[in-house]
Amino acid sequence: MSGWVRIVGLGPGNDALITPEVVGVLEEATDVVGYIPYVRRVPARAGLTRHESDNRVELDRAQHALSMAVEGRRVAVVSSGDPGVFAMASAVFEAAEDGPPAWRGLEVTVHPGITAMLAAAAALGAPLGHDFCCINLSDNLKPWALIEKRLRLAAEADFAMAFYNPRSKARPEGFGRALEVLRDTCAPDQLIMFARAVSTPDQALTVVPLSEATPEMADMRTVVIMGASNTRIIPRDDGPWVYTPRSVPV
Amino acid sequence: MSGWVRIVGLGPGNDALITPEVVGVLEEATDVVGYIPYVRRVPARAGLTRHESDNRVELDRAQHALSMAVEGRRVAVVSSGDPGVFAMASAVFEAAEDGPPAWRGLEVTVHPGITAMLAAAAALGAPLGHDFCCINLSDNLKPWALIEKRLRLAAEADFAMAFYNPRSKARPEGFGRALEVLRDTCAPDQLIMFARAVSTPDQALTVVPLSEATPEMADMRTVVIMGASNTRIIPRDDGPWVYTPRSVPV
Repeated sequence: MSGWVRIVGLGPGNDALITPEVVGVLEEATDVVGYIPYVRRVPARAGLTRHESDNRVELDRAQHALSMAVEGRRVAVVSSGDPGVFAMASAVFEAAEDGPPAWRGLEVTVHPGITAMLAAAAALGAPLGHDFCCINLSDNLKPWALIEKRLRLAAEADFAMAFYNPRSKARPEGFGRALEVLRDTCAPDQLIMFARAVSTPDQALTVVPLSEATPEMADMRTVVIMGASNTRIIPRDDGPWVYTPRSVPV
Repeated sequence: MSGWVRIVGLGPGNDALITPEVVGVLEEATDVVGYIPYVRRVPARAGLTRHESDNRVELDRAQHALSMAVEGRRVAVVSSGDPGVFAMASAVFEAAEDGPPAWRGLEVTVHPGITAMLAAAAALGAPLGHDFCCINLSDNLKPWALIEKRLRLAAEADFAMAFYNPRSKARPEGFGRALEVLRDTCAPDQLIMFARAVSTPDQALTVVPLSEATPEMADMRTVVIMGASNTRIIPRDDGPWVYTPRSVPV
């Protein structure tokens, strides 16, 4: 039997957000590789070997998946959210491009998932209802100057913005610097939203004007959404609705 | 029984990409409202009334959904893709904000789906694997000058870009103008991708350098993805892999 690599997205946390297509891939796989907590979301069964690896070893993990597939294994590479958004798909193609020619002859497919910003936006209302951008705030793999440049241009374009990886123990200061850039470029009453552990029992949502945002409002499990200048809030007793209108008047 | 409005995403076309959460909403609904082809994706059954409406009447449709929910109906509002990305969620909240107070007391929830750009990116490889933006190229609801400004700033930020509604019979020229703006601001060999009818039997993928792109490559069923300056192509006999690397060297 010929091996393959299928890169799948497990969605933001709630199993009811995993697509049937991804469930089908996991049922056919002989091996699952991924970051420890994501691999643990795949139930153990006979015939399935689960390979857990630590964070920040994405290229090693991709090479492992490709080398197993060349040996005829059916390998599911799991990411949370969508595998094409700051996740494993790019790492697998990068490893395939730089690896032995046999890796580029393999069947490698990507199977989308609900990425965190879409689940966060849904929980809040529709803050990404008009043009938006999506920025990874970690400077592990790119210079901070590029992040800052993109923030300034995105604010000038008046995009709504979704931020992944806003803050971690290893990078406690970055998000505070991002807030300073946003305060330089956006109005103080522009809305900013913090969606933590979306779709899980730990879900917590916070909506504040930019002037009241603090770095501590974000952690590793938070997606941050910055509203556009016309993003609106509808106050309600059980949590506001936030949305960005579909139209911008001429 | 109290009524509700649940705004759901049916994904890009293949039913294997609909989440179990959305399937559950559709099973509980008494009414489904939406644009004709999306409502027809929901199977008829006893106890379910399907309300089909034409394109471009989003606010009317949203008001209809909210008014039925006030009467105790359980109303599913369907969009293709994700309901929060250029779809019905913003229209429902806009109608709720401007409508009678009872509408703002309703249970209104949004249930995410696989939006077209994620399915298109997955089919192509991982072109949205790093920072990106998402722009609706239709000028039905915003001035063309704003679209052009956002394109220029997004190019300056070196985002990968996903374009929705690139071209329609009513707007045949807009996409050609967008290509001109991109040619002003991006390198001629930067990759641009056309993903038509993604996840359906009609799926067609085209990848060309920007210098070879023509307006006719896009239609109403196409999502266009413009690569960033470092987006790479891996040629293969059965269609290339395209990906944007996770890292940008300092």
